Amino acid sequence: MEKINSLTGMLDLISSKSEKSELANKIFLTEKYLKNIFQNYGMSEIRTPALEDTNLFKRSVGDASDIVNKELYSFNDKNDKNIVLRPEGTAGVIRAIIQKKIDLEAHKFWYMGPMWRYERPQKGRYRQFYQAGVEILGHHEGLPEFEMISLVCSINQYLQIEKPLVKINHLGDNKIKELYCEDLVKYLSPLKSKLDEKDQNRLKKNPLRILDSKSETTQNILKDAPKINNYISNSSKALLDEIIKTFSSECSIQIDSSLVRGLDYYTGFVFEAVSDDLGAQNAYLGGGRYDNLCSQLGGKNLPAIGMAIGLERLSTLVNAEEASNKLLSFIILSEKINPKAYKIAHDLRLLNENVKIDIQLSEGSLKSKLRRASKDNADYALILGDQELESETVIVKSLKESNSEQKSMTIDELNGFIPTIS
Amino acid sequence: MEKINSLTGMLDLISSKSEKSELANKIFLTEKYLKNIFQNYGMSEIRTPALEDTNLFKRSVGDASDIVNKELYSFNDKNDKNIVLRPEGTAGVIRAIIQKKIDLEAHKFWYMGPMWRYERPQKGRYRQFYQAGVEILGHHEGLPEFEMISLVCSINQYLQIEKPLVKINHLGDNKIKELYCEDLVKYLSPLKSKLDEKDQNRLKKNPLRILDSKSETTQNILKDAPKINNYISNSSKALLDEIIKTFSSECSIQIDSSLVRGLDYYTGFVFEAVSDDLGAQNAYLGGGRYDNLCSQLGGKNLPAIGMAIGLERLSTLVNAEEASNKLLSFIILSEKINPKAYKIAHDLRLLNENVKIDIQLSEGSLKSKLRRASKDNADYALILGDQELESETVIVKSLKESNSEQKSMTIDELNGFIPTIS
Repeated sequence: MEKINSLTGMLDLISSKSEKSELANKIFLTEKYLKNIFQNYGMSEIRTPALEDTNLFKRSVGDASDIVNKELYSFNDKNDKNIVLRPEGTAGVIRAIIQKKIDLEAHKFWYMGPMWRYERPQKGRYRQFYQAGVEILGHHEGLPEFEMISLVCSINQYLQIEKPLVKINHLGDNKIKELYCEDLVKYLSPLKSKLDEKDQNRLKKNPLRILDSKSETTQNILKDAPKINNYISNSSKALLDEIIKTFSSECSIQIDSSLVRGLDYYTGFVFEAVSDDLGAQNAYLGGGRYDNLCSQLGGKNLPAIGMAIGLERLSTLVNAEEASNKLLSFIILSEKINPKAYKIAHDLRLLNENVKIDIQLSEGSLKSKLRRASKDNADYALILGDQELESETVIVKSLKESNSEQKSMTIDELNGFIPTIS
Repeated sequence: MEKINSLTGMLDLISSKSEKSELANKIFLTEKYLKNIFQNYGMSEIRTPALEDTNLFKRSVGDASDIVNKELYSFNDKNDKNIVLRPEGTAGVIRAIIQKKIDLEAHKFWYMGPMWRYERPQKGRYRQFYQAGVEILGHHEGLPEFEMISLVCSINQYLQIEKPLVKINHLGDNKIKELYCEDLVKYLSPLKSKLDEKDQNRLKKNPLRILDSKSETTQNILKDAPKINNYISNSSKALLDEIIKTFSSECSIQIDSSLVRGLDYYTGFVFEAVSDDLGAQNAYLGGGRYDNLCSQLGGKNLPAIGMAIGLERLSTLVNAEEASNKLLSFIILSEKINPKAYKIAHDLRLLNENVKIDIQLSEGSLKSKLRRASKDNADYALILGDQELESETVIVKSLKESNSEQKSMTIDELNGFIPTIS
């Protein structure tokens, strides 16, 4: 029979002890750590649907961006409405709070989930990928900027990221951003023909994006271009300096005046965390202030700042390890299925949240089952044969201690023993 | 500006302390509890993509089922390939292990995530909904059946479900199922015109589904119909009896010979957990053995049993409560942003995984900030004004004790205090 395969650019994540599962294990671990951090920062979870009206992203992320221009995973539904699998998380969050009429309140949200982009699959880029994110809503420039970089430092520390670098910049308010764009276009226009082709197109649509061009020619031309730090206000400059002063003891942090971020909606403070271990696409998280987005989507004037984290990229940098829960491998030795034996195993479960009890379901000899327990890296084997069943005892065999001690315990003794395992 | 709304039948889940968030809070809590249980049972996470080839569900769930017939959320992608947002979790799991060539190995998997069906939205039914599930692969009938019901009992107990009832049944092997279907059709055919219209259609396509018809007329006719328990083998009957004997002390459990489950691929043991609190659609989880699915999808002959859990329904039945992490509300009192003050707050974070530190980001008086801390149900307020900053101390005010004690602590004392909060 013909096999059915997964769709192009869509990964299966299967956790196991084999090496093939490394990406899956790392992503799941990263998600767990991030959730802990978000909760410790007093943030609440928000989860918006995977599907949205396509106009939401046209109006927020922007028509000129690559995401909306080329990469939207959009289609017509059965009612011929054009809908899209969300390419990012922020627009949906803002749409949701406008719809729930809570767009005048302050919020600290986190989210986590799959996103989709219809792009040519390549190494490390998938059509379904995972992002986590944070949005702090309802507060003007100031402490929220510190809160964002505090989070970035905590992520770097807690997940033990190798040699991270945090880059920050300030794009000024709308007026300054506009003025700077004009001057940049003025400077670049006479040089247009020398720019990289991709950047020539950006000159009209999205000139700021030229600043983070990957083209060496473009970057050479930019050396003498006007710099955003000559346009922003003194208080914006002071903010950048204060943030560097506050966090430089925590991780490498520096101003990068070419940092602009890919999405149209950013204004003010922007940031990115990069690692050389990632190669050319070296950012594993990024974000910034987007005070105009809520009103742009028909809501109130809600100041906002956020960040998005690419889980595939971040997880490859994680050195933190799984807190190892103890594993008990329960071996029932019996010719036929014995409900009484199974019940004994069942009753031991959930006695200790930090202990996994894996009942071996295959048939086989004690020897093969003990081998299996060792292969699974179990800490103890619990053995229940006909003889033990008669005397209502279980043999507890330590698999980790060198002398491989084993003893017989009554059910009462086991009920006392299991909660003490840590 | 015109607002953009969410799509029909797609909920936003926003966690907060307001009553409007009850469903979101319950679903998130239920997911957390379920993950703990799955991990305690020694199961591994598997996560397949949201999108699959439409043929996957036509070939697995079955052309005659409501899901494939009417409810698939399918569309043509930009290459005109017909693809679908997965309506359930099992087919993708089996597709994935066939593709990874691990369809001869034994596995215990759990998954959790959104599913989609394009149906008319109605109370409690959404176009995007959440399911968790478990698949035990590679083991023939026997212990895995006990493992499933053990899981169901643990879910009922751990989440404190109100008055749950577990129903079990056995559909026999392929041959018996076929034979029984023939006899059922023979009995019903002369009575066809008296059946409910929906059931008349099922008679040809999917006669077993008539057994769980909601129509009273149909149910009256079925009273004298042949019963599956007169067809199944003695060992199948013994299995049902043994499972009841094993778990009847744990929860209400009974044989229901009309239980057939909605999907085509089930054979052998099937089960469902229901609660009267749910109304007409009263099942919150269900599953069964599906030994033929893997080969049907082009893989090996892999025996399998699984269950799926409807998170929206289950979560409305949960009485268990969130383990309450302590909340510290950090209040910075300063005319202007003070990086030194923020750094003190930052350094206290992650000292204790069970303590949330919420830095208040709004401006305002001490009084308004303390009111906010109380409203958030914080356990302590940590107050840092210019005076404390000078002396490098923080005021720690208990908000839960009646005498509302407060004292001044040095940073070192705080570093010692926070890890002791539990």
